[in-house]
Amino acid sequence: MIENEKLRQQIEFLKEIDDLKQIFRQTVLTKDRRQENDAEHSWHLAMLVMVLSEYSNHSSIDLLRTVKMVLIHDIIEIDAGDTFCYDDHDRNAKTKKERKAAHRIFGILPENQAQEFIDLWEEFEAMETPEAQFAAAVDRLQPLLLNYYSEGYAWKKHGIKRSQVIERNHHISKGSKVLWEFAENLIHESVKKGYLIDG
Amino acid sequence: MIENEKLRQQIEFLKEIDDLKQIFRQTVLTKDRRQENDAEHSWHLAMLVMVLSEYSNHSSIDLLRTVKMVLIHDIIEIDAGDTFCYDDHDRNAKTKKERKAAHRIFGILPENQAQEFIDLWEEFEAMETPEAQFAAAVDRLQPLLLNYYSEGYAWKKHGIKRSQVIERNHHISKGSKVLWEFAENLIHESVKKGYLIDG
Repeated sequence: MIENEKLRQQIEFLKEIDDLKQIFRQTVLTKDRRQENDAEHSWHLAMLVMVLSEYSNHSSIDLLRTVKMVLIHDIIEIDAGDTFCYDDHDRNAKTKKERKAAHRIFGILPENQAQEFIDLWEEFEAMETPEAQFAAAVDRLQPLLLNYYSEGYAWKKHGIKRSQVIERNHHISKGSKVLWEFAENLIHESVKKGYLIDG
Repeated sequence: MIENEKLRQQIEFLKEIDDLKQIFRQTVLTKDRRQENDAEHSWHLAMLVMVLSEYSNHSSIDLLRTVKMVLIHDIIEIDAGDTFCYDDHDRNAKTKKERKAAHRIFGILPENQAQEFIDLWEEFEAMETPEAQFAAAVDRLQPLLLNYYSEGYAWKKHGIKRSQVIERNHHISKGSKVLWEFAENLIHESVKKGYLIDG
């Protein structure tokens, strides 16, 4: 039906990623406590980037690249599935599965765009550039916010402790010391309010 | 709890917009035919902008501003609700309600950010700049794609006809002649396959 082969590939990709709306996470929405999916999560992260970028440890980050990174970072989960961040798991096996997914899904696109998205995803995963560090920071801060405002729903369900939350989230400080200080207060308040086990 | 007043406002806003995930639209997802919500829709639009911007009628558009626009354009629906694009309704009353919503919700943010988001939303609505015209084009193309790939689910449910689809969507051509040509083919195919009433 589509005569333009390039456009055909692009539309095929845009149809494929509709499935990100079906990948559900452990965190729940603040109001109705329904599990959040990856598309909603990615949208929310982009909003965090837009609103909070002034708190990056680096005086200026490339906003467009950071927004792109958070918008595409979970697309690999269409094939690889979501991993709850407090699960202990084989990180090597996970990375291998995710890289395969990146090549299959982004590979639907015309070559230059496929490469751009694979590079962005690899940059996000490596967490070395200021943009990737800030993207990783909001990727951890957002579920902390949802957990706090849902009275620790996912934490309670899985019996998560303060020390685990600190261990899994302290890399927020790599992207933003201000946001990590804020997150530490949120964790402290969560323990005080009984949303999170002190231990 | 948050000592920094500016950060307190920003976090309050980021919590408030969690509710966009609860505003459901008429279009359904391609796989399980569940209704799509505004947060998922906004994420998908941002992906369309990233992938399809080369087809803008203007040789180059400001990608970051266009992405920002599609990410925030529906936030006003938290207060104003979603309007099915084929509904006949009082446009003036709708605009008034939406403007009030924009001022309340974006107004939670610190003043400069509130103004930036209100301006972006007004720019999107006015559909005059190349960025707003391209944003409006993808905002119409995305539900067309979902309708086509769900075999006309929402069209059939509401008894929508080809002429209505053309009337409501032909402004895609203002943002992109290439994408409107593609959309016209999609509409033609939809009629041929019985997804859409010919009339």
